[in-house]
Amino acid sequence: MPRKAVSEPATADATTSSPAAARPSVSTLTSIAADAGVSLSTVSKVLNGRTDVAPDTRERISQLLRRSGYQPGSQLGFGVVDLLLGAGECTVAKSSPWAEELISGTVQAAAAANHSVIVTPVSTPREFDRWLELAAVRGTHGALSVLHLPRGAELRQLAAAGIPVVVLDPAEEPGAEIRSVGTTNWQGGLSATRHLIELGHTRIAVIAGPADLWSSRARLDGYRAAMLAAGLPVDERLIRRDAFSPSGGREQAARLLTMADRPTAIVAGSDAQAFGVLQALRDAGLRAPEDVSVVGFDDIPVASWAAPALTTVRQPLAAMAATAFRMLRAVGDDTAAQAHHIELATTLVVRDSTAPPAKRRR
Amino acid sequence: MPRKAVSEPATADATTSSPAAARPSVSTLTSIAADAGVSLSTVSKVLNGRTDVAPDTRERISQLLRRSGYQPGSQLGFGVVDLLLGAGECTVAKSSPWAEELISGTVQAAAAANHSVIVTPVSTPREFDRWLELAAVRGTHGALSVLHLPRGAELRQLAAAGIPVVVLDPAEEPGAEIRSVGTTNWQGGLSATRHLIELGHTRIAVIAGPADLWSSRARLDGYRAAMLAAGLPVDERLIRRDAFSPSGGREQAARLLTMADRPTAIVAGSDAQAFGVLQALRDAGLRAPEDVSVVGFDDIPVASWAAPALTTVRQPLAAMAATAFRMLRAVGDDTAAQAHHIELATTLVVRDSTAPPAKRRR
Repeated sequence: MPRKAVSEPATADATTSSPAAARPSVSTLTSIAADAGVSLSTVSKVLNGRTDVAPDTRERISQLLRRSGYQPGSQLGFGVVDLLLGAGECTVAKSSPWAEELISGTVQAAAAANHSVIVTPVSTPREFDRWLELAAVRGTHGALSVLHLPRGAELRQLAAAGIPVVVLDPAEEPGAEIRSVGTTNWQGGLSATRHLIELGHTRIAVIAGPADLWSSRARLDGYRAAMLAAGLPVDERLIRRDAFSPSGGREQAARLLTMADRPTAIVAGSDAQAFGVLQALRDAGLRAPEDVSVVGFDDIPVASWAAPALTTVRQPLAAMAATAFRMLRAVGDDTAAQAHHIELATTLVVRDSTAPPAKRRR
Repeated sequence: MPRKAVSEPATADATTSSPAAARPSVSTLTSIAADAGVSLSTVSKVLNGRTDVAPDTRERISQLLRRSGYQPGSQLGFGVVDLLLGAGECTVAKSSPWAEELISGTVQAAAAANHSVIVTPVSTPREFDRWLELAAVRGTHGALSVLHLPRGAELRQLAAAGIPVVVLDPAEEPGAEIRSVGTTNWQGGLSATRHLIELGHTRIAVIAGPADLWSSRARLDGYRAAMLAAGLPVDERLIRRDAFSPSGGREQAARLLTMADRPTAIVAGSDAQAFGVLQALRDAGLRAPEDVSVVGFDDIPVASWAAPALTTVRQPLAAMAATAFRMLRAVGDDTAAQAHHIELATTLVVRDSTAPPAKRRR
């Protein structure tokens, strides 16, 4: 696949692939430069179709290139995919560790397949249009989109330009009109809550994300399912909603901790919220897990940096990026066989922020 | 500059820039496709010099493209820079928030100048060679390098290929043979320590990074300078070294906290180490800042997530990336006037992890 990708066409419908388009090595280019009596950068210019090289020099170099098996002008003779970063609640500007692990995962999956990744922020429709113009001109093997769900006109433009797209962790219910890779949010919410129930907790609060996000609805329903399965009552006062941020977690936890019958455990909607819960505990002079157990969601790299290190639900972000990359690069039968949405399983990672409830203290 | 960049040459020495190379808009391409009676992706193929288009179709499209002012074959008719990510202590695989903020900063600075960023991990010499082959073939406006300091043969290869390079936060003393952007590490170490002295601390420990890193030597000397300026003795037992990681900080802090005359404040070499110091305090049943004040270094986005939120020395990572990008894209007189190394100032960010020493408790 890596070999093939080098000369694969930029559009999904084209299938011709000429060995003549394989890229020459630097050593080949260097010897061609020596033979032609020019610099390597001059050879590179000819290769790149630039016009600022004297005609006879260009012809001499072109002949040498063709003799070495390379066809000048086969633009972007290597794999390239685009990574589009929308402006969700966590933008690149705010440097969400979550978004950035998806970037790393994409870059690594692409590098393993000899593809380069072009990263572009598309936080406005204007930025999307500008990216599409560039991508249509230079060619791309497809786009992965994070925190941006193309629809309507954008989907039609992408189709017209022959640019396949896969959305990572879609914010809305994934429809059949676009391919996407997500994670088992419902299962994650369930396993986080079940872990606390197994430790002996019965009074368990949950801080959910914004109600309009697909993932936060699924996680909250996982919490309810675990409580129901254990025959535990769901106290609606213990269900809170806020932004997927430390301040969201801190504020909601602060309210929960002032309740007369405060919970012994809190399921946060994200690791960012869980960090905020730990801050609220500190503000209240309480400790995790001695006074209140805390579970996060995501397992971003810094989850283990918390004091105590966070027990959390791992979203396999790097694997999600790799899966999305493979969906993007699938051709022919592989494409036809694809589901339009794939969810990768979450895993509970138990660290130091959860423990049995301290019954004596209550 | 954004306009100009679109048609600027990929190599530093070339200066011709033809308006004919400006990229056509998608609407232009769409109307050309309509005129030629083909799909947009076929127009894109011709634009990209692909050979899987029937000759007469290609000719028809090429004529329409030329009439619209565009010259097919002027490869990569847009700005592109490469971001190389080496395998330092914090690799992308380990998802260091530090490295990732540099990625975000570069992507944003480039996007603001209408440049795309191609991100490539180069953790082995083989990966560097492979990247260089690709970059020489497709063209690039230059490379920013993070955690990888090209030297010797690599520098010669880059020069031969006409690819300018700027190193971000060099791990070694920045030499004149390569341009680089760093931060005022010595000043940062000094201001962190002075802040603690001003709060009334006299027994201040420091956890430095690895001795072979330029930045950790400078930060440690800043600590010494602040102590000296305040007439405070430097107790060598309070000077520790370890990896720039949470476990490094946790281990060294654990040793410091068991000393009979333990320090009342700890200057960590990085935010990652400072998170480890907070974990060690928790392990020892101590609190920050009540028992021990803690200062970090970097101000990565998650520094404010800690409990308590970290007082730290801010490295302007995004501004460093933007400066490096501008150095890379400077041409002519601007290039000649450039220093080979620029340091941007650090800033002390006071949050909740520092306070006057609790004299009563000692």
